[in-house]
Amino acid sequence: ISQLPLSDFGKHRNALVAKMPNNSIALFPAAKELTRSNDTEYAFCQHKNFYYLTGFNEPDALLVLLKNEQGNSESILFSLPKDPLHEIWQGRRIGQVKAVQEYGVDASFSVADITTLLPSYLNNKDQVLFGFSDHDFAAQVFTWLKQVQSSVRQGIKAPQHLIDSDPLVAELRLIKTDNELALIRQANYISGLAHQRAMQQCHVGKFEYHVEADLLHEFARNGARHPAYACIVAGGDNANILHYTANSDTLKNNQLLLIDAGAELAGYAADITRTFPVNGRFTAEQKALYQLVLDAKKLAINAIKPGMCFAKLNELTNAFLTEGLVGLGILQGEVTQLIQDKKIKDYFIHGLGHWLGLDVHDVGDYHINTDREQRRAFEPGMVMTIEPGLYIPLSDSSVAEKWRGIGIRIEDNIAVTATGFENLTVNSPETIADIEALMLTAKA
Amino acid sequence: ISQLPLSDFGKHRNALVAKMPNNSIALFPAAKELTRSNDTEYAFCQHKNFYYLTGFNEPDALLVLLKNEQGNSESILFSLPKDPLHEIWQGRRIGQVKAVQEYGVDASFSVADITTLLPSYLNNKDQVLFGFSDHDFAAQVFTWLKQVQSSVRQGIKAPQHLIDSDPLVAELRLIKTDNELALIRQANYISGLAHQRAMQQCHVGKFEYHVEADLLHEFARNGARHPAYACIVAGGDNANILHYTANSDTLKNNQLLLIDAGAELAGYAADITRTFPVNGRFTAEQKALYQLVLDAKKLAINAIKPGMCFAKLNELTNAFLTEGLVGLGILQGEVTQLIQDKKIKDYFIHGLGHWLGLDVHDVGDYHINTDREQRRAFEPGMVMTIEPGLYIPLSDSSVAEKWRGIGIRIEDNIAVTATGFENLTVNSPETIADIEALMLTAKA
Amino acid sequence: ISQLPLSDFGKHRNALVAKMPNNSIALFPAAKELTRSNDTEYAFCQHKNFYYLTGFNEPDALLVLLKNEQGNSESILFSLPKDPLHEIWQGRRIGQVKAVQEYGVDASFSVADITTLLPSYLNNKDQVLFGFSDHDFAAQVFTWLKQVQSSVRQGIKAPQHLIDSDPLVAELRLIKTDNELALIRQANYISGLAHQRAMQQCHVGKFEYHVEADLLHEFARNGARHPAYACIVAGGDNANILHYTANSDTLKNNQLLLIDAGAELAGYAADITRTFPVNGRFTAEQKALYQLVLDAKKLAINAIKPGMCFAKLNELTNAFLTEGLVGLGILQGEVTQLIQDKKIKDYFIHGLGHWLGLDVHDVGDYHINTDREQRRAFEPGMVMTIEPGLYIPLSDSSVAEKWRGIGIRIEDNIAVTATGFENLTVNSPETIADIEALMLTAKA
Amino acid sequence: ISQLPLSDFGKHRNALVAKMPNNSIALFPAAKELTRSNDTEYAFCQHKNFYYLTGFNEPDALLVLLKNEQGNSESILFSLPKDPLHEIWQGRRIGQVKAVQEYGVDASFSVADITTLLPSYLNNKDQVLFGFSDHDFAAQVFTWLKQVQSSVRQGIKAPQHLIDSDPLVAELRLIKTDNELALIRQANYISGLAHQRAMQQCHVGKFEYHVEADLLHEFARNGARHPAYACIVAGGDNANILHYTANSDTLKNNQLLLIDAGAELAGYAADITRTFPVNGRFTAEQKALYQLVLDAKKLAINAIKPGMCFAKLNELTNAFLTEGLVGLGILQGEVTQLIQDKKIKDYFIHGLGHWLGLDVHDVGDYHINTDREQRRAFEPGMVMTIEPGLYIPLSDSSVAEKWRGIGIRIEDNIAVTATGFENLTVNSPETIADIEALMLTAKA
Ligand SMILES: [Mn+2]
Ligand SMILES: [Mn+2]
Ligand SMILES: [Mn+2]
Ligand SMILES: [Mn+2]
Repeated sequence: ISQLPLSDFGKHRNALVAKMPNNSIALFPAAKELTRSNDTEYAFCQHKNFYYLTGFNEPDALLVLLKNEQGNSESILFSLPKDPLHEIWQGRRIGQVKAVQEYGVDASFSVADITTLLPSYLNNKDQVLFGFSDHDFAAQVFTWLKQVQSSVRQGIKAPQHLIDSDPLVAELRLIKTDNELALIRQANYISGLAHQRAMQQCHVGKFEYHVEADLLHEFARNGARHPAYACIVAGGDNANILHYTANSDTLKNNQLLLIDAGAELAGYAADITRTFPVNGRFTAEQKALYQLVLDAKKLAINAIKPGMCFAKLNELTNAFLTEGLVGLGILQGEVTQLIQDKKIKDYFIHGLGHWLGLDVHDVGDYHINTDREQRRAFEPGMVMTIEPGLYIPLSDSSVAEKWRGIGIRIEDNIAVTATGFENLTVNSPETIADIEALMLTAKA
Repeated sequence: ISQLPLSDFGKHRNALVAKMPNNSIALFPAAKELTRSNDTEYAFCQHKNFYYLTGFNEPDALLVLLKNEQGNSESILFSLPKDPLHEIWQGRRIGQVKAVQEYGVDASFSVADITTLLPSYLNNKDQVLFGFSDHDFAAQVFTWLKQVQSSVRQGIKAPQHLIDSDPLVAELRLIKTDNELALIRQANYISGLAHQRAMQQCHVGKFEYHVEADLLHEFARNGARHPAYACIVAGGDNANILHYTANSDTLKNNQLLLIDAGAELAGYAADITRTFPVNGRFTAEQKALYQLVLDAKKLAINAIKPGMCFAKLNELTNAFLTEGLVGLGILQGEVTQLIQDKKIKDYFIHGLGHWLGLDVHDVGDYHINTDREQRRAFEPGMVMTIEPGLYIPLSDSSVAEKWRGIGIRIEDNIAVTATGFENLTVNSPETIADIEALMLTAKA
Repeated sequence: ISQLPLSDFGKHRNALVAKMPNNSIALFPAAKELTRSNDTEYAFCQHKNFYYLTGFNEPDALLVLLKNEQGNSESILFSLPKDPLHEIWQGRRIGQVKAVQEYGVDASFSVADITTLLPSYLNNKDQVLFGFSDHDFAAQVFTWLKQVQSSVRQGIKAPQHLIDSDPLVAELRLIKTDNELALIRQANYISGLAHQRAMQQCHVGKFEYHVEADLLHEFARNGARHPAYACIVAGGDNANILHYTANSDTLKNNQLLLIDAGAELAGYAADITRTFPVNGRFTAEQKALYQLVLDAKKLAINAIKPGMCFAKLNELTNAFLTEGLVGLGILQGEVTQLIQDKKIKDYFIHGLGHWLGLDVHDVGDYHINTDREQRRAFEPGMVMTIEPGLYIPLSDSSVAEKWRGIGIRIEDNIAVTATGFENLTVNSPETIADIEALMLTAKA
Repeated sequence: ISQLPLSDFGKHRNALVAKMPNNSIALFPAAKELTRSNDTEYAFCQHKNFYYLTGFNEPDALLVLLKNEQGNSESILFSLPKDPLHEIWQGRRIGQVKAVQEYGVDASFSVADITTLLPSYLNNKDQVLFGFSDHDFAAQVFTWLKQVQSSVRQGIKAPQHLIDSDPLVAELRLIKTDNELALIRQANYISGLAHQRAMQQCHVGKFEYHVEADLLHEFARNGARHPAYACIVAGGDNANILHYTANSDTLKNNQLLLIDAGAELAGYAADITRTFPVNGRFTAEQKALYQLVLDAKKLAINAIKPGMCFAKLNELTNAFLTEGLVGLGILQGEVTQLIQDKKIKDYFIHGLGHWLGLDVHDVGDYHINTDREQRRAFEPGMVMTIEPGLYIPLSDSSVAEKWRGIGIRIEDNIAVTATGFENLTVNSPETIADIEALMLTAKA
């Protein structure tokens, strides 16, 4: 599977329509092309909700879902028209005919017809659903509502309720289908090949961005044309900058190299982090901290099953890492007290994980009501990262010098199954032995 | 009564709160001052919904109504702070202390605190109510929502439903309390004095805007500092321009003068139209048409009671006027057919009436569902205008010449009572006899 | 003269064109109608610069002035099209034919053609002039520029200089023609009649807004349908609020009444202030302060001639008022020192005057370069107000009690002539004797 | 040289300041980060004008250049402040101290100070320069102007002239320094290595985006982390879509492959196109057309020297290609007539070339006044592409079938020298012999 069958997007639409109240309309705009400089543009990335509901990969389109008083629905896609001159210059367009035939919408019109048709769709609807996070589109919706409003004395009703569609789509996206899981599994596999290659081709003196180039080349070679997010390739102390994407330094002997990189496959993300020695051999201190993080990751992952939640995984991991750092002499004091004081957050400064899917930090609520502690129970079909880490900056003079400048994160992607979990990250080497063996072989 | 007791506005707030869902917030911005030219401003007119809910007459304020999960509510008024320097230059402000003491809100803060407090009010609310017609404010709401949204990963929920408060307030405003009726009655009385004066002081050669000045002076002399809408003072053929407010011509012998003018008293409108001969004596044709319109008005008004609707009043009036015009030879053909073809709309070109209250064209739905025919049943406490008219422009060569250039409208303000109606327009002369007598006496 | 001959506006356009660089375009949008509440609007007030250049009194229009490389110019007026249906409802429009015939522009098109024509006018122009204070219009200009820009690779040049037209028009408007002076003179005369009537009809117990109604009625009766600014009718201590326009109190015995009110005639303003005793007789303290302000006004006015400037008038008046207040015991200390310390500004809290014309606070620079002291020399044709005042609030416990609650301002409108000045304010009574005599007679 | 010495950017600033009028201010905003999806961002690309004037590579900054009445200037850089917490999460910032020390500006402040300082910089300046193409920034400028305007009665002058800085910077950027030429030369060299690799690793059945991955990997491996524009890798008929960037098809036997790809090095672009047979051997028809395009390119390039212009190169090339197509029987008719009718534009559908520099379609005027024909004379230091092409779509039934589906473009980058030209594209194989030899060797 290299992308979802188009029929799956129809299922997604149906699932959303099932959540729409009767006599409502939902509006999903596609992304726009973004200028990089002057007249050049960044590689187009479809708006993920729009993609989830259409599989349609052109800019400037608009999906309209109508649900009438009886609960019957209709899907309409506005998209760029077929235009020979434009297509000679800018590339092929799918057009209205194929939109209906291949993408399975009930009707399709040119974007030029939006102005005329949209207000008529809004007439007498009770509710309008759209994503509140897009302020430009919200302003557009209010403009259309005003057009409807101007007919109110003639007996037309204007919608009086606006519903944020973002959380509704988020709940759908949160539970992955088997096809979605297959794509994320494949994105993980491709990413694993790239992490292997990074380890194999790593050497002292190489630039961090050279390693990034190897990763991206391996992604694309295996069918993933874009990364899911900017690669972090962080040698030594750079690893202590969490979103280090400058990737501009050379790799030095005795440093660790932290790589956080995942492929995007047909819109779906992998998000994998590995940390390994630039020269192929862990030092004693690196080994000690690395093994601690690795064990923490295993502990957390093994606890995953339906009903578990991030809050409990956090407790487990934090306690384990606290004990570990006390054992290494990095934390001093009574373990129970240190745990209660959350002292570990001085070294493990980010969260344990996040949802994963079409977005690397995928949508979906983490909380029950307003618990603030991520107590939402896991369900089969959820996919998340587990990514413990330990970060001791060079500048941290409160820790013995030998530990400084070490930053470690190990991150896998986990699907919740009916009975437990599936670790989707199967081919990214992680044990000290495996890593050292792979790197040694590569050098030979 | 010269304005509502401040406690009435508290009752209005309570009535709105009762309509709010639990765990919701409602936002009502005051009007802003509008520049007339350079650094001068128009006389401030408060936003009518804001006024209805507060009685507060300063610009730039914001009313917040909070209703929690248990249904308990709180009202907060943000208003301009007391500021000695500003008050020396611009005038006195009520300030936060008096806002609570006199206007009965639960708390009051300076407008400078809105930015800080508003997002915190929105946290974890399910629904936000505000008026969708104000696009600038809508954009502001989305900005606040975005601030809330940025805390979502910490477990804060952002509201996911926006509700148009305009129709909710409209339904409240549509049914008038006794105090409101008293104000509209008084506004009618003052307007009647002005119409009397206009008749008494009318003479050939006077400018239309001179008559307007008399009307406005009489309004203010009696406590109504502003008109409810721009006065229409339309001599002769000008009456055939429905919203003629140029008022720039001189009055000529044998013309009719149509005056559509009503006072605004403590925010409440009267809306009265009278048509009379500039020289004090109706011609035969004027008399014939005038009597027809007058009789149509009586017919419609006498039919008003709970359960009646505009659609039926329209039928009555249209049939009556059609018969009348056939009788005068202005319409030719079979009456039933002419009625069916709505031929009368060639001469009676506007609607029969409209709601009246804080706005001259007051808020409130006219329709049942989407009937498009104003079939909503009248209820006690509703106030409306009844304003039949006949308009035969000078340029209308399809009608015999003697009728041309005549435009007549007669408009009263009617409250629906438990058993029938009260005509609030009691002192604006309307019979031919009364008008001619008044004008004759004035000349003497 | 009740308004400028239309040919004068053509002269104004020519004067502006003479200031435009070759190969430039100037854009002047008309004002828009402003909503008062719901579907009612404030009385339309044309944008003063647009009016100055066209005499055209409809909203939504746009004046375009083109000046080519050879210095030849063309004027184009975009205005609302003639539209029978719209005119039946909203009133007559001038339309394109009359715009050319009567308003003397070279061409006129419907506003619907702006989108098409404007970018073509901008093609290859070097400079665009428009008023920088109108941000919405500025955004519109940038949108048009972008349209031109998109043709740049085809050899079209887009304008690269934007010039603020506000100061250019301001300099023209600052020097009044004889016709403009005639209008301001007439506006003054009408305003004087109103101030006389206010004195005559003033009595204890009357509301301030009743006096305002008398003023407005007298303005309109004499041809000035609107005031040039919101009337200030301030009894007693209210006079110490400079822009008191609430006008909501009753007038009390022994109070002074300060009235700042001027008519607007054909767009031109008068701005006159008079202060007089509510009961018709000044008290001793009122008399003392009033005479001081009156003498200060005379002193300043008599000094006006070409070459004089506000800075010098300020020095004169401040010194005179300081001496006066020392004489009355209100200021204590050495006069020279008090003057140097500008102590008088505790009681004379506003500026001595301002330009007057189409705006009450008319446009035009007060400064030479960046002097900050209003040292610009007067020239024939300039019109200004001279309005000294003294303000001792009731709350000012630093002054003996008998002076408190007195606020006085006396304001005339002065034109600079070739040899000195003309006081345009000829019929607003100002001497104690005249005022008391007029009020006594009126009571009789 | 892998990037310009920071002192060069100071020279660029000085060159711009020299073009600024006295008593003016110029404003150059940095680019903002652009969201790709949810909370991930595209790789940051600095605004090219801002980069040209600073060499500073952070978002959200603002360069201010002040030139006083005496012609003395000052440069101020507003940039993100040093912020330890932010830097742990998002990466290192340069901060204000280094901005002055390393980037050579006269002063540097935090972006938080812009609101306060900017209006004071604008006070009393005559002219403001900024890029008119950025509408959001233009709106910001008008907001600042309004703040200045509010102090005008106190004698502050607000700037009355806005000047589009885009054309001024464009003229500077158009003439490259030796260091800039060195970077473009190096970008060309790197791109040439990538084109070689593409040829070597090309084979039937490979996906177009696999070739893209090879190109990008080779760019990065050699120090160019980003391409200057989206790679076009167009097999067979895809080459007839000019900006084909889908790169989604497999390469087929007997097809040509058109690759338009250039590296970006330290902000500077290469823009190279090569076309070669997927299987390593040109067919007879491919050979015929390819040689014609190649000869056209040589003809054009050899004509380049100071004083030449695009208009003349177009004439040369169009005539040559017309003759060639007549020779091949693709065009029929009399050559002179065909040239006059510009028949060649049916097959050579784009322009012959464009400026090249920081942007791939670099800034700089092509025209003299409004000639519309690109008659501007070349000058030493200008860099341009020369890229003739011939395109015969599969769907073009007016041409003999054997020619259909062939699209060829060959593009080099040329610098104008004092006496002629330098072809910067030295290592991208282009002769039929060289290409076939390279591809044959690679397969072995
Ligand atoms: Mn992650
Ligand atoms: Mn009415
Ligand atoms: Mn004044
Ligand atoms: Mn190119």
